[in-house]
Amino acid sequence: MIGKHTKSILLENQDSFLIAAENVATVLCSHPAEHALLVLSKVGYNKIPVLDSSDRLVGLISLANIVDKMVDLNGFNSKVLDGLNVADVMEDKIPSLKPENDLEDALHLLVGVSFLPVVDENDIFKGIVTRKEVLKSVNHLVHEAEKRYEFIPKTDEIKEGINT
Amino acid sequence: MIGKHTKSILLENQDSFLIAAENVATVLCSHPAEHALLVLSKVGYNKIPVLDSSDRLVGLISLANIVDKMVDLNGFNSKVLDGLNVADVMEDKIPSLKPENDLEDALHLLVGVSFLPVVDENDIFKGIVTRKEVLKSVNHLVHEAEKRYEFIPKTDEIKEGINT
Repeated sequence: MIGKHTKSILLENQDSFLIAAENVATVLCSHPAEHALLVLSKVGYNKIPVLDSSDRLVGLISLANIVDKMVDLNGFNSKVLDGLNVADVMEDKIPSLKPENDLEDALHLLVGVSFLPVVDENDIFKGIVTRKEVLKSVNHLVHEAEKRYEFIPKTDEIKEGINT
Repeated sequence: MIGKHTKSILLENQDSFLIAAENVATVLCSHPAEHALLVLSKVGYNKIPVLDSSDRLVGLISLANIVDKMVDLNGFNSKVLDGLNVADVMEDKIPSLKPENDLEDALHLLVGVSFLPVVDENDIFKGIVTRKEVLKSVNHLVHEAEKRYEFIPKTDEIKEGINT
């Protein structure tokens, strides 16, 4: 469990944690794969969310996913993409943050991925939480914690009292 | 400045902060750009360090850097890469960690980039520090700090004493 003072400082910037859906580049799963390649090469992100026509999150697609498809034994062949849709190339087993998840879940999941899509209870895509924004809060935390609080080592007695 | 107790907990995992050069995929600046594309599509990283023949860090190259070159007004054209070397496509104005930098510098720089190349005083590439590894330490910090220490709010008097 994250300590309450620690959590409180970390969450002081929580408004900037979520990058809202309208500010995130996405593609539709029914789009041609080559369209995703063009979007990815222009937006400056390596991986973007894939939505269905009802704005539900269905996967993520990365430059690596697409380029990997294009590399065959003879080298590099962009013809391979002809006829493929985003749904054929995307990753669909992806972690996301749901309404029941909290800061602790987000911090754990972000060890494994550089950003987390956020969805509502109907899987509608709401935005992303990124390692970058969380690291801004971490910088805030590590600079503020000992300015605001005296850190007094707990004795074993106090620790036991807390654990019981 | 990062508080001393905070810093001490963050640095308990510092041995895992640096991913050593021998475990990092790199390319030579004199390699063909298409070679970098093949390496990047296989290693699972979006961006890798570029070295010269003396193991000095000279830049970073990403899938986006290469794909961006290949996209022209007519769509996607891999012929554009013919005759280009890694040095022609890489980014060469990149932040890195030098021997004089500390944890505070690393945490600040990692807000802007997903990993930092580490070099010695002669610019020889020693490895990378990643947001991922730092986030592992952050998880450790936020779970441990209030287990080990009682956080006692500082009065203004104490704060002033510290600042003078």
